[in-house]
Amino acid sequence: MYFPSWLSQLYKGLSRPIRRTTQPIWCSLYRRLVQSSQRRNPEFNSFAVRTNTCGELRSSHLGQEVTLCGWIQYRRQNTFLVLRDFHGLVQVVIPQDESAASVKKILCEAPVESVVRVSGTVISRPAGQENPKMPTGEIEIKVKTAELLNACKKLPFEIKDFMKKTEALRLQYRYLDLRSFQMQYNLRLRSQMVMKMREYLCNLHGFVDIETPTLFKRTPGGAKEFLVPSREPGKFYSLPQSPQQFKQLLMVGGLDRYFQVARCYRDEGSRPDRQPEFTQIDIEMSFVDQTGIQSLIEGLLQYSWPNDKDPVVVPFPTVTFTEALATYGTDKPDTRFGMKIIDISDVFRNTEIGFLQDALSKPHGTVKAICIPEGAKYLKRKDIESIRKFAADHFNQEILPVFLNANRNWNSPVANFIMESQRLELIRLMDTQEEDVVLLTAGEHNKACSLLGKLRLECADLLETRGMVLRDPTLFSFLWVVDFPLFLPKEENPRELESAHHPFTAPHPSDIHLLYTEPKKARSQHYDLVLNGNEIGGGSIRIHNAELQRYILATLLKEDVKMLSHLLQALDYGAPPHGGIALGLDRLICLVTGSPSIRDVIAFPKSFRGHDLMSNAPDSIPPEELKPYHIRVSWPTDSKAERAH
Amino acid sequence: MYFPSWLSQLYKGLSRPIRRTTQPIWCSLYRRLVQSSQRRNPEFNSFAVRTNTCGELRSSHLGQEVTLCGWIQYRRQNTFLVLRDFHGLVQVVIPQDESAASVKKILCEAPVESVVRVSGTVISRPAGQENPKMPTGEIEIKVKTAELLNACKKLPFEIKDFMKKTEALRLQYRYLDLRSFQMQYNLRLRSQMVMKMREYLCNLHGFVDIETPTLFKRTPGGAKEFLVPSREPGKFYSLPQSPQQFKQLLMVGGLDRYFQVARCYRDEGSRPDRQPEFTQIDIEMSFVDQTGIQSLIEGLLQYSWPNDKDPVVVPFPTVTFTEALATYGTDKPDTRFGMKIIDISDVFRNTEIGFLQDALSKPHGTVKAICIPEGAKYLKRKDIESIRKFAADHFNQEILPVFLNANRNWNSPVANFIMESQRLELIRLMDTQEEDVVLLTAGEHNKACSLLGKLRLECADLLETRGMVLRDPTLFSFLWVVDFPLFLPKEENPRELESAHHPFTAPHPSDIHLLYTEPKKARSQHYDLVLNGNEIGGGSIRIHNAELQRYILATLLKEDVKMLSHLLQALDYGAPPHGGIALGLDRLICLVTGSPSIRDVIAFPKSFRGHDLMSNAPDSIPPEELKPYHIRVSWPTDSKAERAH
Repeated sequence: MYFPSWLSQLYKGLSRPIRRTTQPIWCSLYRRLVQSSQRRNPEFNSFAVRTNTCGELRSSHLGQEVTLCGWIQYRRQNTFLVLRDFHGLVQVVIPQDESAASVKKILCEAPVESVVRVSGTVISRPAGQENPKMPTGEIEIKVKTAELLNACKKLPFEIKDFMKKTEALRLQYRYLDLRSFQMQYNLRLRSQMVMKMREYLCNLHGFVDIETPTLFKRTPGGAKEFLVPSREPGKFYSLPQSPQQFKQLLMVGGLDRYFQVARCYRDEGSRPDRQPEFTQIDIEMSFVDQTGIQSLIEGLLQYSWPNDKDPVVVPFPTVTFTEALATYGTDKPDTRFGMKIIDISDVFRNTEIGFLQDALSKPHGTVKAICIPEGAKYLKRKDIESIRKFAADHFNQEILPVFLNANRNWNSPVANFIMESQRLELIRLMDTQEEDVVLLTAGEHNKACSLLGKLRLECADLLETRGMVLRDPTLFSFLWVVDFPLFLPKEENPRELESAHHPFTAPHPSDIHLLYTEPKKARSQHYDLVLNGNEIGGGSIRIHNAELQRYILATLLKEDVKMLSHLLQALDYGAPPHGGIALGLDRLICLVTGSPSIRDVIAFPKSFRGHDLMSNAPDSIPPEELKPYHIRVSWPTDSKAERAH
Repeated sequence: MYFPSWLSQLYKGLSRPIRRTTQPIWCSLYRRLVQSSQRRNPEFNSFAVRTNTCGELRSSHLGQEVTLCGWIQYRRQNTFLVLRDFHGLVQVVIPQDESAASVKKILCEAPVESVVRVSGTVISRPAGQENPKMPTGEIEIKVKTAELLNACKKLPFEIKDFMKKTEALRLQYRYLDLRSFQMQYNLRLRSQMVMKMREYLCNLHGFVDIETPTLFKRTPGGAKEFLVPSREPGKFYSLPQSPQQFKQLLMVGGLDRYFQVARCYRDEGSRPDRQPEFTQIDIEMSFVDQTGIQSLIEGLLQYSWPNDKDPVVVPFPTVTFTEALATYGTDKPDTRFGMKIIDISDVFRNTEIGFLQDALSKPHGTVKAICIPEGAKYLKRKDIESIRKFAADHFNQEILPVFLNANRNWNSPVANFIMESQRLELIRLMDTQEEDVVLLTAGEHNKACSLLGKLRLECADLLETRGMVLRDPTLFSFLWVVDFPLFLPKEENPRELESAHHPFTAPHPSDIHLLYTEPKKARSQHYDLVLNGNEIGGGSIRIHNAELQRYILATLLKEDVKMLSHLLQALDYGAPPHGGIALGLDRLICLVTGSPSIRDVIAFPKSFRGHDLMSNAPDSIPPEELKPYHIRVSWPTDSKAERAH
């Protein structure tokens, strides 16, 4: 998608002015990077056989003898050539005089995307031929010598069309895709942002970067852990989903402040926009409370935030899990826009509308609504239809669309039963304007909120595709969600409990007594960090008391404590109070760069089926290489038949 | 070993002066860390519930109200208590007055290694009770309030004796071991050194930190790669031994300068001082030659070198592989001391000594010797015996000890056949002194050198155990070894070739023609970095020409090129010339900290059998958890019998 946009701008932009564009193009990469690296200016030419990068040359270099290395981006009528490196583009004049015939031959015959080295002089472009859109647009290179370092074979597609091709093709030829502006920008921004996080943690706040093992032991309930067979029969390592146990053990070991940019593994089979291996900024510290961790992370993001974005404002707002659910119908609210869920039960206490009456008479029965701004203008009749169908199909709920203009209550005859006084009260409560639409539902509190939360997001997308500017694309809206429940009923057996997050999460100090009476009601000291409606981090204050940990694991969760005996023992031997957090780096960078997928911020991602389309991993292994690991393949029966063919 | 040394110093040093010692103790940790972090002073108390660390308090804090959190290190007669955190130690006065009975109770009853929080005032120690050996030795804390944060159960051993116990016990209770000065120092130094490397690469030289996958496809000949079964029957990921392919593909992708602190995996079964997962500083850059990479690394080590060591002097000396073998009998010479191998063939051209005659008459036949300084003084008769036995058993070679004092040629009657003129020539060539011993051998060049190389190291160890100071413990002697052979004969079939390093290594520019005539003679552009006789890094300029890469893989190495088709294709599509290096981080930090084992610089290492002794990984997996991966355990027959019991 973006590849042709910047590349075509480049092609167009070489010798004649182009229209102003908001698309990122090569010319801005260097500026952005230099800005965002805080006026540090890395030496890009040290140790290399070039004297300069293509993108750095300016009028101030006029007359200098330079040696450049790069890829042939474009050639025009055997007179000009545009050379590209990671830094930018520069125009090279192909010499036309007889004496330079060999240089001309090299530069004219080398296919596009070949790698060349040229030496020559920086000269002014002839008057009138400057290109103000191009950072190097005032100069060009008068070549003296040229060397073809590597010829490029015919590419499997026109590189201009590359981004229009399927993502599968981009992943198969990832090394070509990486040459795009966008991938260069994404990977360089990622590197710089992580570097600044390290500076903040390590140099400013005394955190210690400690590597923890990835060949570990399975964790209780670790059903999503990849296995690694060992040379001992029947014994397997597991690739951990996070360094959770290790970071806690480091606190017991007195390391005080730990962080790691940690590789983690999760085998969820095929899931779009998930990767089997991913990276988290993993943090743990001792003698800290929830506020401490929150301030630490606010400072971390503020410090590491790219300078080409609006600065991060701290502290971030905080809502409780209960508030988030009631107001946004989700525990990861997108707070870039309003359309909050409003409880309008009181308006309908005496209603004659049957399904509202029904709902309100039941326990936790409520009437809730959201207001779609200018909905009457932007939403079509069929949108309302599909909203109602969605509610019926997925939530078994009725949705009642209410328009201020009573004539437009399409398909909801019940709306006619809303009395004028109710309508006025509704307008007041929901703060609706002339063209707004109210979506109203009734039912059990959580269910009604969840439904409206989904509809809130669906309608926002819909309004935006219809042209409304609802969410500022430059806005980054952070939010803490706190006071989660400590336990949830098990899906397969709702009378048993499971941890809402993980079993090491400490209970809320005010709710400890509930563990022994009504554990379901106990809140935890877990906190989630949400950015623009995406969970980008989560953490908690941990249990440091061995007795409490044992009680929760054995009595409440009915886990086999033997598998965690080392951790329980560690808590017995002087574990300090501690807490931490993990930020999902891939997701964070994806949001910061505005990329459509996390695959765009990972150099070599897997497809959603977990395949590396470039190298074709995973791969078959000859049986003799399985032997040392004492395993055999169990071929599924139908697959056996396939193999026989 | 070191645990009791610093700990006992601490115990002794609290209220009375101790003898000067060269052992590292807590008091020096902070000073060292602050020095080595280049006068940056991290804020260790931010976000925490303490006001100060235990180790930072000085006379300048007198009168301040402070809150400290730490472990009870020691208690003396219920009057004093020493509190420890990662930063150091501080003395706390246990209040004796009635009104503070509850504080006294807490501080007197909490077992050693319990975690407490105390608040109080920094006061001067009474005159005469200052401890100049302790950074906090001028002050103590007058406690007002105390809280027991976590009581420590009875430890499984006296912590004073911990380091005297087996390493297995240290690994089982790693979280206790981590509290030791030495582990704290090692892990913090590691973190800081890596941080400085990142600053150098990322901020000063424009390298991009890029993460590459660890779930990959097996590489040709990758017999030492761990397997990870996928959910597709018969398909496996492999955990790569290095990001080699990815870093080259990043260069093809135009990333120009890549680095990563990369987790790598190698399954070598049980090998002492190897880890199944290890870390390398992985570097690759485009448009660079061998000299460029060498300068880059020299600068990197100079920049990141801890400030409490002597600075690194650059450039590092370089020897060729051939010289290294001839002079030191190894490709990783320890250049901290002499005892070089000298070719003395010419002295014996006309000898009457049979085995010398024999050796010299054969192809590549030589007579070689090393000189053991003061060997006559330090080596015993039985040492010479065991040296000769070693040479006979492992190399099938004769060793002739030659003393300047002819009477002492124990057990080598042939030495009497050495003529006076030969003896004088030998003294001149070898530059021997009165009490030296010359060890002489004859045979094929490489074999003779290898043997003398081993004896050189053995004798150095021997001399040092006898009290000679041969290698300065503060000396770090770096060395580049270059011009390795590109291929070696395969061990199992010496008529076939295998890569001396890996198949992507570029041939030496002067030797490309040899690939088509005498490939065995071709040298490579591989380089190793050696520190004090340990290989700490290796790299090469890579092949960027697809044709050459295909020829080497298919024709010379007879590899299945299909498994590398993605890499070959990438080289076809505009791969720039590139090269790189990888430094073994664990080994490097081990040498810098002077640790006996790499396990001492890794937070949670595996035992030499690949076990995590703390958590007991690898572990058994229930058969139902193997099902999604389509594998079964093949129990060895005897193991089946075992299981039946």
